[in-house]
Amino acid sequence: MSFEQRLTSLGLTLPSPPQPVATYVPSVRVGDLLFISGVVPSREGQIVFQGKVGGDLSKEEGYEAAKVSLLNALANIRQAAGSLDRVQRIVKMTGYVASHEGFNEQPYVINGASDLLVAIFGEAGLHARAAVGVAELPMSVPVELELTVQLLPGDS
Amino acid sequence: MSFEQRLTSLGLTLPSPPQPVATYVPSVRVGDLLFISGVVPSREGQIVFQGKVGGDLSKEEGYEAAKVSLLNALANIRQAAGSLDRVQRIVKMTGYVASHEGFNEQPYVINGASDLLVAIFGEAGLHARAAVGVAELPMSVPVELELTVQLLPGDS
Amino acid sequence: MSFEQRLTSLGLTLPSPPQPVATYVPSVRVGDLLFISGVVPSREGQIVFQGKVGGDLSKEEGYEAAKVSLLNALANIRQAAGSLDRVQRIVKMTGYVASHEGFNEQPYVINGASDLLVAIFGEAGLHARAAVGVAELPMSVPVELELTVQLLPGDS
Repeated sequence: MSFEQRLTSLGLTLPSPPQPVATYVPSVRVGDLLFISGVVPSREGQIVFQGKVGGDLSKEEGYEAAKVSLLNALANIRQAAGSLDRVQRIVKMTGYVASHEGFNEQPYVINGASDLLVAIFGEAGLHARAAVGVAELPMSVPVELELTVQLLPGDS
Repeated sequence: MSFEQRLTSLGLTLPSPPQPVATYVPSVRVGDLLFISGVVPSREGQIVFQGKVGGDLSKEEGYEAAKVSLLNALANIRQAAGSLDRVQRIVKMTGYVASHEGFNEQPYVINGASDLLVAIFGEAGLHARAAVGVAELPMSVPVELELTVQLLPGDS
Repeated sequence: MSFEQRLTSLGLTLPSPPQPVATYVPSVRVGDLLFISGVVPSREGQIVFQGKVGGDLSKEEGYEAAKVSLLNALANIRQAAGSLDRVQRIVKMTGYVASHEGFNEQPYVINGASDLLVAIFGEAGLHARAAVGVAELPMSVPVELELTVQLLPGDS
């Protein structure tokens, strides 16, 4: 099953790629590496989760927010590469979690994105990762993700 | 107009490259990629903005701090590559904003750097970006920037 | 003296590589670049420092925590590459310091890792670096490190 088919079989559809709110772009490709701008839990331009995890939001809500954020990263990959099937490997993800004082389960929250990467890409979705807790995120979102992806060679 | 000429036409001059305050270096090159150490709003070794944005500093002051920080990144690029004209593409920038409780306009602040990148490098300055709000930054600066740059091939 | 010999001559031994606590992997290699997952101050699965630097922990304790964290990154490198002697260059390190309100000596803390990199790898250990202060880290650790390393070509 292709990665695009796997996405469909999971009952998921990707949103429109999020539009950068300033003078930057959704992703930049250098050779086979695709560097993706920070993505947040929005759908079609609407923020769908706000608040700090461990306070306003439960860790389970944070997990969902990470999943929604990841769909935006996938939309960026598809836009840049034409199809998720052009992915060779998910290389690295840094997950920032807006954390209430004393909340230390950032890994649980970012698993919302990591688990989905592996569900879609299998072995190719196993990535290096860091999860940190930050004070504040843009538009009061609970999660922001930065990804680096390796694409199949040949069409850069 | 070359990138160096564009810089001059904007009335800007670069400071001396900031000296690392410890056992690291201003940048490391791997192939055509240049990884630049975190830069802060200093000029010739003097910090020129201190405090948290949204509290001690306005978002407009944060924007200026991001601009001053970027000049240090450009100084590092020129030092490593010989000239800004050796830049092929600004690949990625992560902007950390020391944020007062409840301040969520990190993108506005980091635009101070993004806007200047595009003013100088045009299309080549359009980068992938993430902006996050952090609790504290070194020397109480309001902004720290991490950049990855692609240089023209041929002289590594 | 090889890097492995240098490690031994410093009286250091590496722990077992830390096991990811979720659906990600310790490192991912793309060409000669090795991207390493976030490492924290643990030894054989046990966290050895907890708390925020500048409050619960002194900056000197933070420095030690950075050193212990780095040993885990080195264990990941050895696991991925077979030996530390396969390192061509330490490219970049981002150091996150869980910081008590008003603590701004993140560079001092992260020097615990930077100094050790240079002690082991010499010139090849001089890296680009950013140090930031964050609100909270997983499992209440005071330090988390993200590294990118260039390996010698030829055996990917």
